[in-house]
Amino acid sequence: MRPLIPFVHQLDDYEAEQWCAALAAQLPDCDMRLFSQLSAVEKIQVGVAVVANPAVDDVAQLTQLKWVHSVWAGVEGIMANLSHQPFEIVRLTDPQLAQTMSEAVLAWVMYLHRDMPQYRQQQSVSEWRQLAYTDAADRHIAVLGLGNLGQRSALRLVDNGFRVSGWSRSAKHIESVACYTGEQSLSALLSQADIIVNLLPLTPDTQGLMDRAFFQQVKTRAALINFGRGATVVESALLAALDQGQLSHAVLDVFAQEPLQSQSPLWGHANITLLPHISAPTSVTTASRIVAANIHRYLTQGIMPESVDKARGY
Amino acid sequence: MRPLIPFVHQLDDYEAEQWCAALAAQLPDCDMRLFSQLSAVEKIQVGVAVVANPAVDDVAQLTQLKWVHSVWAGVEGIMANLSHQPFEIVRLTDPQLAQTMSEAVLAWVMYLHRDMPQYRQQQSVSEWRQLAYTDAADRHIAVLGLGNLGQRSALRLVDNGFRVSGWSRSAKHIESVACYTGEQSLSALLSQADIIVNLLPLTPDTQGLMDRAFFQQVKTRAALINFGRGATVVESALLAALDQGQLSHAVLDVFAQEPLQSQSPLWGHANITLLPHISAPTSVTTASRIVAANIHRYLTQGIMPESVDKARGY
Repeated sequence: MRPLIPFVHQLDDYEAEQWCAALAAQLPDCDMRLFSQLSAVEKIQVGVAVVANPAVDDVAQLTQLKWVHSVWAGVEGIMANLSHQPFEIVRLTDPQLAQTMSEAVLAWVMYLHRDMPQYRQQQSVSEWRQLAYTDAADRHIAVLGLGNLGQRSALRLVDNGFRVSGWSRSAKHIESVACYTGEQSLSALLSQADIIVNLLPLTPDTQGLMDRAFFQQVKTRAALINFGRGATVVESALLAALDQGQLSHAVLDVFAQEPLQSQSPLWGHANITLLPHISAPTSVTTASRIVAANIHRYLTQGIMPESVDKARGY
Repeated sequence: MRPLIPFVHQLDDYEAEQWCAALAAQLPDCDMRLFSQLSAVEKIQVGVAVVANPAVDDVAQLTQLKWVHSVWAGVEGIMANLSHQPFEIVRLTDPQLAQTMSEAVLAWVMYLHRDMPQYRQQQSVSEWRQLAYTDAADRHIAVLGLGNLGQRSALRLVDNGFRVSGWSRSAKHIESVACYTGEQSLSALLSQADIIVNLLPLTPDTQGLMDRAFFQQVKTRAALINFGRGATVVESALLAALDQGQLSHAVLDVFAQEPLQSQSPLWGHANITLLPHISAPTSVTTASRIVAANIHRYLTQGIMPESVDKARGY
């Protein structure tokens, strides 16, 4: 009998079918099925499940579950709802995702580095004015968060001539990137960076990290790119920092609540570039291949991928 | 007696002083002076001059001139006015300039690749909508002009994952870049490229190259980046191609007449990103170092740098 692997989700039907079909194609030796298609008897036989924002009540019915594989890299939602459960949680680690994210980081760093917001403003009033050019080597970029996505992003920036520093919870060593850890070094780094790129995961430690005190430490006229998680930024503190000129510009791709409500003051702010969570879209093709390979290795060799550390939250 | 090297220009006083001071600092064995400070006798002793958009009447007074060194890479102005003169013309070849230009090409290719114009439009109407992501490897960039600037730009695009083709007057070979030459291959390339980057010099051959017939050959919804010269593009044909949807967007940094007049329809066009000739500003620091080294080698060893081919115009 083929092992039964359910896909437990709260996506719309179309997206769920896409994932399930892609996973089924990669796991021909498994019976890959939507959770809604499982009988009561089948539910208590499931040992491994693939999840995308699963409902707590659904997962609770899988009483023999040993581990779940999320199709996404961010697991703060699952951690908030399911971290007390006895099963392990595995998140997506996709080189393609790191590739796309590092491209987005480079693209929007270039956007700020080459003064695109200012030139757009000048165009809107037919103003021909050349701003002073700053060499990339004199543009100091701080990448906060040096996991897979942060490391690749930092290296891509180095490859393109920028001066790059990194900061992370646990100490890292990356060639050509000055790496820091700890609260004091964060203060020092913030006071020196021209562009701050947030790629930190959302955990109790990073929730609300970018508050009034944080923005008071940044270099005057620095810019922020938030490609991490929305709840890391205290919105009122960000708006105050922009309006006081402490920050020159913010590129925001993630928000505490998504989609961002249409009445949010962020949409119309002259010094905010607002993106609808598109910095690094998960590719169904590459992600399903990776999830399938992890499940296949578990079923054939009993080896489980590294799971999320429930204490630290990622 | 130190050799007298005049700086012949039509810049404003501040800019001229900057160049002259930077050149003087690099040429301590020469008497580096503004043209206006030369006596009649001194003028007929000059063998080499540094020029920046020189007046024809000024240069004509330097009757013993063997060659001039322009501080800029583009020489179409000098060629139009001075190519009939007996002296040779040397243009700037500055690796820093190629570095800055390749950065600009990458920055504005990323701008189009990551849909920044569309996301800006969506932001202006508070619309949260995720556009389909295209992998860089599936984004075909055509670089027209494969001189120093074009080659470096093409390689930078390859390094950042794009599919890159190049086209130039004389055949070139560049690793990982499909290189074409000739009119027929240009037609074929235009029909396949998603983004066309113009870095061609302005010559009788390239003047008005991008006309109605040119834009009829491009792939539907392709985009144009013009970082070469304004007069290569026929403005009415460009506007028609944008308005008919043949082109999706144009990033324009150069214009037939600069500064662009404030009443130009280009300023307010929704599908044009307009820049005030800032893609690759010449650095006085690095350019004056290169010009000085060329002059020093000529004075001490008699070796003149490669000069402009007056027949082809660059």
